[in-house]
Amino acid sequence: MAHPQTTFRGTDFHGKSMLSVRRSTIAKKTLHTQLNQLRSTGRYDCFKLKWHPIYDPSNVSRDMWPVTPHLFWDSDIGKWVEAACYFLQSEHYDEEIDKAVQELVDMIRSAQGEDGYLNLHYTVVEPEKRWSNLRDMHELYNAGHLIEAALAHRDYYKNDLLLDVMVKYVSLIRKVFGLGEDQLHGYPGHPEIELALFRLYSATGSQDAYDLARYFLEERGNPKGQNGKHYWEWEAEERGDIPQKRPNWYPEVGSLWYNQAHQPILEQQSVEGHSVRCMYLLVAVADMIRLEGDTLKAEAWMTAVTLQWNNMVDKKMYLTGGIGAIKQWEGFGIDYFLPQGTDEGGCYAETCASIGVMMLAERLLQIDLQNPDRRYADVMELCLYNNVMTAMSLDGNAFTYVNQLASSDKNPSGRSEWFEVSCCPPNLARLFGSLGGYLWDYGSNNNGETFINVHLYTTAKLTFDNSVDGKPVKLEQRSNWPWEADVAFTLSAATKTTIRLRLPAWSENQYTLTPAADDTSVSNNGYLTLSSAYLAANPFFSLRIGGFAPRYIAPHPYTNQHTLTLARGPIVYCAEDVDNPWETNHFRDVAVAASSPVAEEARVDEQSGEEYVALKTKCWPRSLVGDYWNGRRTEGAEPGTTRTRTRDDQKELLGDDAKELVLVPYYFRANRPGKGQMRVGLLKA
Amino acid sequence: MAHPQTTFRGTDFHGKSMLSVRRSTIAKKTLHTQLNQLRSTGRYDCFKLKWHPIYDPSNVSRDMWPVTPHLFWDSDIGKWVEAACYFLQSEHYDEEIDKAVQELVDMIRSAQGEDGYLNLHYTVVEPEKRWSNLRDMHELYNAGHLIEAALAHRDYYKNDLLLDVMVKYVSLIRKVFGLGEDQLHGYPGHPEIELALFRLYSATGSQDAYDLARYFLEERGNPKGQNGKHYWEWEAEERGDIPQKRPNWYPEVGSLWYNQAHQPILEQQSVEGHSVRCMYLLVAVADMIRLEGDTLKAEAWMTAVTLQWNNMVDKKMYLTGGIGAIKQWEGFGIDYFLPQGTDEGGCYAETCASIGVMMLAERLLQIDLQNPDRRYADVMELCLYNNVMTAMSLDGNAFTYVNQLASSDKNPSGRSEWFEVSCCPPNLARLFGSLGGYLWDYGSNNNGETFINVHLYTTAKLTFDNSVDGKPVKLEQRSNWPWEADVAFTLSAATKTTIRLRLPAWSENQYTLTPAADDTSVSNNGYLTLSSAYLAANPFFSLRIGGFAPRYIAPHPYTNQHTLTLARGPIVYCAEDVDNPWETNHFRDVAVAASSPVAEEARVDEQSGEEYVALKTKCWPRSLVGDYWNGRRTEGAEPGTTRTRTRDDQKELLGDDAKELVLVPYYFRANRPGKGQMRVGLLKA
Repeated sequence: MAHPQTTFRGTDFHGKSMLSVRRSTIAKKTLHTQLNQLRSTGRYDCFKLKWHPIYDPSNVSRDMWPVTPHLFWDSDIGKWVEAACYFLQSEHYDEEIDKAVQELVDMIRSAQGEDGYLNLHYTVVEPEKRWSNLRDMHELYNAGHLIEAALAHRDYYKNDLLLDVMVKYVSLIRKVFGLGEDQLHGYPGHPEIELALFRLYSATGSQDAYDLARYFLEERGNPKGQNGKHYWEWEAEERGDIPQKRPNWYPEVGSLWYNQAHQPILEQQSVEGHSVRCMYLLVAVADMIRLEGDTLKAEAWMTAVTLQWNNMVDKKMYLTGGIGAIKQWEGFGIDYFLPQGTDEGGCYAETCASIGVMMLAERLLQIDLQNPDRRYADVMELCLYNNVMTAMSLDGNAFTYVNQLASSDKNPSGRSEWFEVSCCPPNLARLFGSLGGYLWDYGSNNNGETFINVHLYTTAKLTFDNSVDGKPVKLEQRSNWPWEADVAFTLSAATKTTIRLRLPAWSENQYTLTPAADDTSVSNNGYLTLSSAYLAANPFFSLRIGGFAPRYIAPHPYTNQHTLTLARGPIVYCAEDVDNPWETNHFRDVAVAASSPVAEEARVDEQSGEEYVALKTKCWPRSLVGDYWNGRRTEGAEPGTTRTRTRDDQKELLGDDAKELVLVPYYFRANRPGKGQMRVGLLKA
Repeated sequence: MAHPQTTFRGTDFHGKSMLSVRRSTIAKKTLHTQLNQLRSTGRYDCFKLKWHPIYDPSNVSRDMWPVTPHLFWDSDIGKWVEAACYFLQSEHYDEEIDKAVQELVDMIRSAQGEDGYLNLHYTVVEPEKRWSNLRDMHELYNAGHLIEAALAHRDYYKNDLLLDVMVKYVSLIRKVFGLGEDQLHGYPGHPEIELALFRLYSATGSQDAYDLARYFLEERGNPKGQNGKHYWEWEAEERGDIPQKRPNWYPEVGSLWYNQAHQPILEQQSVEGHSVRCMYLLVAVADMIRLEGDTLKAEAWMTAVTLQWNNMVDKKMYLTGGIGAIKQWEGFGIDYFLPQGTDEGGCYAETCASIGVMMLAERLLQIDLQNPDRRYADVMELCLYNNVMTAMSLDGNAFTYVNQLASSDKNPSGRSEWFEVSCCPPNLARLFGSLGGYLWDYGSNNNGETFINVHLYTTAKLTFDNSVDGKPVKLEQRSNWPWEADVAFTLSAATKTTIRLRLPAWSENQYTLTPAADDTSVSNNGYLTLSSAYLAANPFFSLRIGGFAPRYIAPHPYTNQHTLTLARGPIVYCAEDVDNPWETNHFRDVAVAASSPVAEEARVDEQSGEEYVALKTKCWPRSLVGDYWNGRRTEGAEPGTTRTRTRDDQKELLGDDAKELVLVPYYFRANRPGKGQMRVGLLKA
């Protein structure tokens, strides 16, 4: 089936590109760094089910209650195994990684209970409390990641050593949860198992997996699901909790929206709460829509997921593809609430959340393969090259969890080697491991003709067989994307083939196709279609995307930002103090003007060898003078006259003291020594 | 002593002014309306200590836990009695009010326990739990308001019927709390008793009252105050609560800043948490500084209160004098976080909080009577005429609790007749009852000469005796403030007298004194000093304040607001849909330009008879077009050139479709039928 974690195998990153460099770094460095972290923290051996000092309940900090530090360890192992298996079957085979995966799988196998149960915490620490806190304790979330690991493992090792374990566990879960009288009518606080179950169904045809995932989605948010009560309120009462006893991330009593369970999913019209949970949930919804096919039920779910996608992209997404303004619940604020950093009131933009957006965009693109919508692919690319790519240092050894658009004294721009809750680093690894699956979709039409939808440009080769006649199809693209706008294609197909090429919205549909074609057209949704006739005549062709010059972008006026941000192609830029050493206040008082010229400078970073394009323009430091307490008299008009007093705002902004401002790609930030001062959106002069 | 609640008796509002009209409304309408509310809700009879259905613990809603609906009833009675006594001794004697006060006092007297204890909840509902939750349960807060009521009662009735009760209660509290080994080292979650105790000390010389208040201030925020723990954490453990069990307004575990107890007060450098609590606490600090006199200790406290005042006024105050951006904890956000309304991310600006600012400003003015600082008085006036005055309808029957600067569909502009937690309405009444105490300070210098500092302009007469020679001094001011800038004064004094007149900051120190004087000077702190020689020669003089023409004010740039607000004199303006019926989106997309002429229109409101000045100017509705999701291309410059593409922001704002915009005083909003659409800060074109 068409999950990118499976289809990526058809893609070969056969030449140097920004993406292949990053993949290589992860394979050679990051997987090992992370393996060392797994070993040194105790995660690696955790499935031996021995006691570890960190399990001591007194380690539950008051701020993390009831979540214990090791509660995500199952998933950390799962994600790393998944990532490792993706890289093992690529050009990056590595013996140490191979051995570690096999040893981990042995340990996981040995940890499964006779009844199929498999969870570190509820086996070693609180064996009597299984399934007692679905809302907070990540039991089903961990199962989901282990299922995904098992699928990746089977694909590479061609055995069921891990998959058998997970199938047995799914059987048990299927028995425990459901609408039956003796079943619990619950669902996970942190979605993940739903999308894993749909992948399991797609890989094995397991109806149990499909039915269980669908049940989780359909039951979620039922206000009277268990004994006339919301399941989580019922289970909290069963535990003896009162509503006022709540984890730190529930700002108020009954914050069911934190977990997207305040309403049934079909009734939710906006993205709310924890952004990663929201994305994983919607990915599963998108999977279900595709698997259900063209039914009335799928249509209702499509309406729901579209409303939420639109709400997110139009009103709750940063210019970098980051989502989630609020630290407390790691998630969405109200519409248009998108401050750039801590000292403006927030900005979270978790790495995993934007990975979730990419997963969702990719799944949504697959729902209507004959009419791909660049709205999804543009966002997918935006996330990849900005909020996601910035989450790893160029050397592959340090990561971000939070990706603010502006630093502050409290939160300087920087990266860490690991986190106590370390979801993001292995998530990055598995994304890049399966990245080929995100570049393009392909298949055969009803009439047996081949089609390929190209969403992302890079240097890579796609190989697959036409599903009707079995004939091989190859498409190669070569480009220096995202720095240059030219992409050269070579098609080799024995069947009639149509290719659709995404024209990003910022291209304003400008492009140059060589050789030119008479019969090309750009769809309403932004794809340039090359006909089988054209392609038969021109197996070698190239596309130059328009609109690649630096441009200013700005957030929605309702964000109250009044800022300009420079972008070039898919890359969003920021200013850093290392290039602008005069800066002392995190660029909070630096203005740029859209009318200023912008110069480009090709650079090679000395330390990492990274090639990138820096931008230079003029800026005007704002000097704040005077007494603002009671509002400043800016100008005062006498009644009935237009006499204007002298104080002039613009003077403050646009004095004669213009300086040069150097900007670098946002993903590149915090890779050089500096004071950690950085900003994406600059005052609009 | 110099508490305004005492000194107001020297002031007579002897002619028509905006303030006297409001006082009259409160005396004739509001006190009766509120008395009816007290009666119909059960508050009036509560000190009979009979059971009322509302006391049923099942009435504690999950969102208000642990605060029961009747927990403030003691204070509601207290504040109303206090307000009533202020008005009884003015020109507004009222027999029904008089009888009610006497009956209430009888009931309060009968409710006191033999040991002096006096609290509704812990006598009737949970008698065994006295002093078990100082943090949340308002036990000492209620005592504070009853002390203030007792002082007002004694001043009018010239008996100690209520004061005796409170003195006895204070004795008990003094025994329970303190640093002694067998005492509780606690202090109230909601400050109020501290300032009441300082008033009690000033009125009666009770050292117990003074010491208790000082203890409460000095002990507050001690991290190891009780058994090595923070008192509230200790008491929570004593109750068997865990940190994660917390009231709805504590966003995270251990939010001690909500109650200003995260540090000792002397170490707090910014205003944090619940804004009313913060103000009442600082009022007590200011009282203590004045009472301590010129000591090193007082200096340290002055440094602390000044830091907090500056933080509040410079970084956390709305243009209307409102404080508190955050609904959840009814209090302060981070620096410069001042959204105008719910759909921008917040705005609370509680009525009581701005009353607290006025109290604090007045107390701070008294600390250095020879060098008054208009920074305090300007803020006091700003609050009075805007955030406070808007809190009552012109007919005196409806009130606000929250005073947002912009309405939204979720929170339209409007008022209510009463609230379940009804602190604000009686607080307004007692403020206006004692308003004379806020107009001016006065006294005698070391050399026996009289001085008067005039802070607020209106029509009123001050009468007092020189404290050295006992000779009477009278100062009368007459003006149509805040609509007209001229104030006529008449001084009658048999001793040498100096007068200081505030020149508001917006006057930019422009004024006309008639007759003119050679020897006048304006202090650095904005007061015009009239010498005794000038005044001896000119007992009749008049002052015209400059800068009275409409002016634009704007919040600090770091608020990210980019708005303009019209003001005229002390009055801040807003737009309402009733004058601008074309508006449909709460003026969110309406821009004004500082260069536009502003016309004034004197109006008389038909229904209320209120006279006010409306303003008219041009505005430009902004039309939001296009696709904003990924940032809008505003302009794009080719590298190295200044070629500018076509999309022009300004066109959106300043099209040819200028409309007339009518603005009315913010205090006047929601007095006429309308859709509840209103905004103070308008887009800056």
